[in-house]
Amino acid sequence: MQKALVIYYSQSGNTKKMAESVAEGIQKAGLEAVVKDVKDVKADELLKYDGLVIGSPTYYGSMSAQIKQLFDDSVKFHGKLDGKVGAAFASSANIGGGNETTILDILNAMLIHGMVIQGDWQGDHYGAVAIDAPDSRATRQCVRMGDRLAKLIKKLQ
Amino acid sequence: MQKALVIYYSQSGNTKKMAESVAEGIQKAGLEAVVKDVKDVKADELLKYDGLVIGSPTYYGSMSAQIKQLFDDSVKFHGKLDGKVGAAFASSANIGGGNETTILDILNAMLIHGMVIQGDWQGDHYGAVAIDAPDSRATRQCVRMGDRLAKLIKKLQ
Amino acid sequence: MQKALVIYYSQSGNTKKMAESVAEGIQKAGLEAVVKDVKDVKADELLKYDGLVIGSPTYYGSMSAQIKQLFDDSVKFHGKLDGKVGAAFASSANIGGGNETTILDILNAMLIHGMVIQGDWQGDHYGAVAIDAPDSRATRQCVRMGDRLAKLIKKLQ
Amino acid sequence: MQKALVIYYSQSGNTKKMAESVAEGIQKAGLEAVVKDVKDVKADELLKYDGLVIGSPTYYGSMSAQIKQLFDDSVKFHGKLDGKVGAAFASSANIGGGNETTILDILNAMLIHGMVIQGDWQGDHYGAVAIDAPDSRATRQCVRMGDRLAKLIKKLQ
Repeated sequence: MQKALVIYYSQSGNTKKMAESVAEGIQKAGLEAVVKDVKDVKADELLKYDGLVIGSPTYYGSMSAQIKQLFDDSVKFHGKLDGKVGAAFASSANIGGGNETTILDILNAMLIHGMVIQGDWQGDHYGAVAIDAPDSRATRQCVRMGDRLAKLIKKLQ
Repeated sequence: MQKALVIYYSQSGNTKKMAESVAEGIQKAGLEAVVKDVKDVKADELLKYDGLVIGSPTYYGSMSAQIKQLFDDSVKFHGKLDGKVGAAFASSANIGGGNETTILDILNAMLIHGMVIQGDWQGDHYGAVAIDAPDSRATRQCVRMGDRLAKLIKKLQ
Repeated sequence: MQKALVIYYSQSGNTKKMAESVAEGIQKAGLEAVVKDVKDVKADELLKYDGLVIGSPTYYGSMSAQIKQLFDDSVKFHGKLDGKVGAAFASSANIGGGNETTILDILNAMLIHGMVIQGDWQGDHYGAVAIDAPDSRATRQCVRMGDRLAKLIKKLQ
Repeated sequence: MQKALVIYYSQSGNTKKMAESVAEGIQKAGLEAVVKDVKDVKADELLKYDGLVIGSPTYYGSMSAQIKQLFDDSVKFHGKLDGKVGAAFASSANIGGGNETTILDILNAMLIHGMVIQGDWQGDHYGAVAIDAPDSRATRQCVRMGDRLAKLIKKLQ
């Protein structure tokens, strides 16, 4: 069975909750989903999955240093994630507080790995966004994002 | 007296309302503020102001074609806006709907003109954002943005 | 046979040359490629292709107003490009002159349409870039981009 | 005397050389410039300077994890950098390799701190870029960037 890894960094628990909703969407679409705190992820593990979803709180408009370190560490197998499917999500304290730039920061890193990403014509276009704790709107976006990711992974098999 | 031009493109009226709130903030800080629909602005006019604020609805994650045309037309006096102060704002239908990328799209164009921009450590960091019609939160952000812009213009006199 | 449309805006001819190289890459991979000046493209045409590649000169860090107008016009069938494959390229006068932000501006618009994009782990990661007239390096990047796009379209069939 | 801090992360030495050229430009314009490796910078030090310039290699399209950690640590005095002047530069292996997004990633973080930034209408618009070791073009851009930053700091005194 194809599988996806959902990685998050979370201090308040908000980003973790979003990760679990994304995983729920992936599983509903029939794929295996593994959810991990970034501190428990070694770069090499990324190679074992068909899809990667990465979520970060919005710290100064980009992914947290812990998430960035994971990408920096992944340079040792640069080229090996080519063609895998990626997606990103972010939690934030404000509406215009940098959540979109945080998501795009992660998506840019995925593109540089040669990964495949897809936007959404509905709702949060670049990736799911929560302002503070994920409300029902944000949770729906996360589940939907997981579902779309899983369907794209299946298509690319 | 120093003066700033607030330019907007608006179909629903939401972005226009934001422009008027930004102008209110500029005026409260003691500068003249002129508000104009982009269709009534010739590129050459930009040269007559100490500061420029540009607002756009969020159309596919960047400024509307009408606003972009104004920037494209401004190439004829490229270099002449060097050192002027700029700011941007956006209205959008969704929280993660591209409002930040729209604002940054405008700010990037201002940087390429050599303009000076300032973020805000409170609220909407890159520029004021409204989801649908500007509520009291968005309106406060617009007024505050105008106030901060005016103070920066004064300092740079 | 699956087919892709390569759209460009070009005043100097540089972006047009890049478009032709992208088309060459698409054709080599066995797909049909149509190359069109943006002024000859009606928004509705976008629906007829499996993939879209859009190239723009770097005007103030984002796509030219003509290209932006095409995206703004496409709102009438918003949702219908969901799942199609997209890519972007840019020509520019300077190395740090806004070519990456121009490409990402186009890719953001594609993501908002729900389209699928892929980066490249080699060379120009977000999309092919030429500084002035496309040299052999830039031309190779364009051909490679067309080839990768075509292969992704085939996989997603 | 007003002073600026130039911070870099460098493994190959390229980004360090750029930092020294930026400092040269700052000093020529009559300000004090201090150059430091990010590993020798504590977040609190940022408060002691009128201007900050930060340079990073291009790692997956954004600032290196070490630079990001410095920003993440700076949250404890969030609001205190309001009005200070900032600038950014990047070194990269490829022309379209993510150098612009790396610079903008740093500038976004500065905006979120409420800092003031200025683009350049000549050459590298967002900040100085070097492809591999800084050649004479890149070095000139670095010196020019330091000079412009220093002049802006003086104006804002």
